[in-house]
Amino acid sequence: MSLLNCNRMNILPDKIADFSNRCLARAGVPSGEAALITRTLVEADARGIHSHGVMRLPLYISRMQKELNRASAKIETVRDDAATALVDAHYSAGQIAGVRAMELAMAKAEEFGVGMVVVRNSNHFGIAAHYAMMAAEKNMIGIAATNTTPLMPPTGGAEKVLGNNPLAIAAPSAGTFPILLDMAMSNAALGKILHAKTTGASIPEGWGADQGGSPTTDPAAVLNGGFMLPVGGPKGFGLAFMIELLTGVLGGVQFSKTLPSMYDLGQKQSVSHFMLAIDVARFIEIGLFKQLAAQLSGYVKNAVKAEGVTELYQPGEIEFRKEKERMETGIPIDAKVVEELNTLAESLGVPALTL
Amino acid sequence: MSLLNCNRMNILPDKIADFSNRCLARAGVPSGEAALITRTLVEADARGIHSHGVMRLPLYISRMQKELNRASAKIETVRDDAATALVDAHYSAGQIAGVRAMELAMAKAEEFGVGMVVVRNSNHFGIAAHYAMMAAEKNMIGIAATNTTPLMPPTGGAEKVLGNNPLAIAAPSAGTFPILLDMAMSNAALGKILHAKTTGASIPEGWGADQGGSPTTDPAAVLNGGFMLPVGGPKGFGLAFMIELLTGVLGGVQFSKTLPSMYDLGQKQSVSHFMLAIDVARFIEIGLFKQLAAQLSGYVKNAVKAEGVTELYQPGEIEFRKEKERMETGIPIDAKVVEELNTLAESLGVPALTL
Repeated sequence: MSLLNCNRMNILPDKIADFSNRCLARAGVPSGEAALITRTLVEADARGIHSHGVMRLPLYISRMQKELNRASAKIETVRDDAATALVDAHYSAGQIAGVRAMELAMAKAEEFGVGMVVVRNSNHFGIAAHYAMMAAEKNMIGIAATNTTPLMPPTGGAEKVLGNNPLAIAAPSAGTFPILLDMAMSNAALGKILHAKTTGASIPEGWGADQGGSPTTDPAAVLNGGFMLPVGGPKGFGLAFMIELLTGVLGGVQFSKTLPSMYDLGQKQSVSHFMLAIDVARFIEIGLFKQLAAQLSGYVKNAVKAEGVTELYQPGEIEFRKEKERMETGIPIDAKVVEELNTLAESLGVPALTL
Repeated sequence: MSLLNCNRMNILPDKIADFSNRCLARAGVPSGEAALITRTLVEADARGIHSHGVMRLPLYISRMQKELNRASAKIETVRDDAATALVDAHYSAGQIAGVRAMELAMAKAEEFGVGMVVVRNSNHFGIAAHYAMMAAEKNMIGIAATNTTPLMPPTGGAEKVLGNNPLAIAAPSAGTFPILLDMAMSNAALGKILHAKTTGASIPEGWGADQGGSPTTDPAAVLNGGFMLPVGGPKGFGLAFMIELLTGVLGGVQFSKTLPSMYDLGQKQSVSHFMLAIDVARFIEIGLFKQLAAQLSGYVKNAVKAEGVTELYQPGEIEFRKEKERMETGIPIDAKVVEELNTLAESLGVPALTL
């Protein structure tokens, strides 16, 4: 009986979480904080967003070891006004900063109806969905966004100016799942472009440009000094620009071209996040809202289907279903990722990740 | 000397405004309210968004004459909590409801740092940009959105479920122009698809689907019972879905498939709007924010250009430049639109619109 299914190992989420927690503990992360970081990583893997899953652990821990990312968080509320706050994460883990900031936004929403928090000097916070969902679980609408290192040129440009600045919006529903949108402002994930190159396929118009900034359908041209393009051209670029304003600019710290890469182990990043929470009950009764949200999902799910389409989905449904299944039966982790994790484990003196 | 430049007449904005105000007055709109409606129409034409310009006047007035749209607005704040409010427009003009709601959101932002208002039972409010810009002019970040009659199927669907639900975000800047994003969630404007059909061109992948819901590059197939597609597929559809939740669902009135078309003169609409205002100074000093916003624009404008590209633009810049020029030299109005407006004028006993 092989432990490998093709190139992946199917591992129970508790095992991954336990492994992640042990590694983080060895890196000096207090147990409560390690649990929060671990939770977002396992959640990402379970939802199929492996790029934000446990594969990030070696990088996070390298950054902690070099003191670019505080092992023990220091989250300071720099300005605390009525319904708004500015939080300085002092280079703590993005997950701790993100969770504390959304908790604060929710407390403000509970008091004032809406609450907004900007976090500055933070790090990579994992999946934006996690923070938006914190609000949805408490009968609020949650909006979470972050800036990232520049990845995309402006429309007509040939230089990286803005990150793919992800945005997540979540709302409660009386349906099977909450409503959840979690999107980056690039047209396609890097993984899809890599996959096209591997399989020799061309990529659709609008996904990427070559190194001169000219649109291309050749994945190799995008990967070889070219650019990921924003979703919908100027629309996606405009949204990324506005998220940059709501994060790094409103935080008054680094943004756009001045924001170092998280892969640069020579300097700190100062990532900024935006968190907004809306108390639904200030507008209509929460039970009615949930029922109407489910009704809207029903219009989507029961719409006439295009030929060959067997099912239509509400935003986030595919990922919620995957998460539900994988939390029970296990999460497939790439064998190469497991190998990297076990190299990390050995260096930390933590037992290897196994089935 | 011909009055016509090709098929357009170049008319000074004051003339258009005067004409619009007179028509609205005859339809029973009080002068202050007429001025607000007129302002958004002229602004749209000046910015090149003619679909939301003075060409809307005959439809607006028809709806007023049938009492589907109140000539004299009745805007009621149904729930007034700390930083949030729910406003019932009682089928007033969307422009009056929109302006009053953003004023209220801004007053709340001034008091609490952030303010959010949902408007229900409203009508078409013109360009979303107008409301977001109200905030930007007062050193705030403004966000405005509205739901619309269904136009787009869900990804994989062949039935209209969601409108193109426009979203505008505006922010002040120390640069020549404020920052302004105003986007609909459809991939392309209907006008571009009509233009492709007229010129015999095909349309890019992703703009539309045929009546069976299959993607097509034939503009005729889109126009002949087919569908406009959301920008970026599930991303644009997800954003439209979330705007539907923040408007019609949070308003507890009609939404999605239950929202009648504004072209249906047999029934009232109950359009809902979302307005959010953020007081920048609660986060960083306003002068610094404006300077950093201009710096971000500079990164965009001064980025390396793709071959053949002569200039790069910050969000909204193209429209601001057009507006500035046209407010001085005149706004080109389609001769057919002028003809329709003069038919309306004759029926109302208002002097014709001329050069």
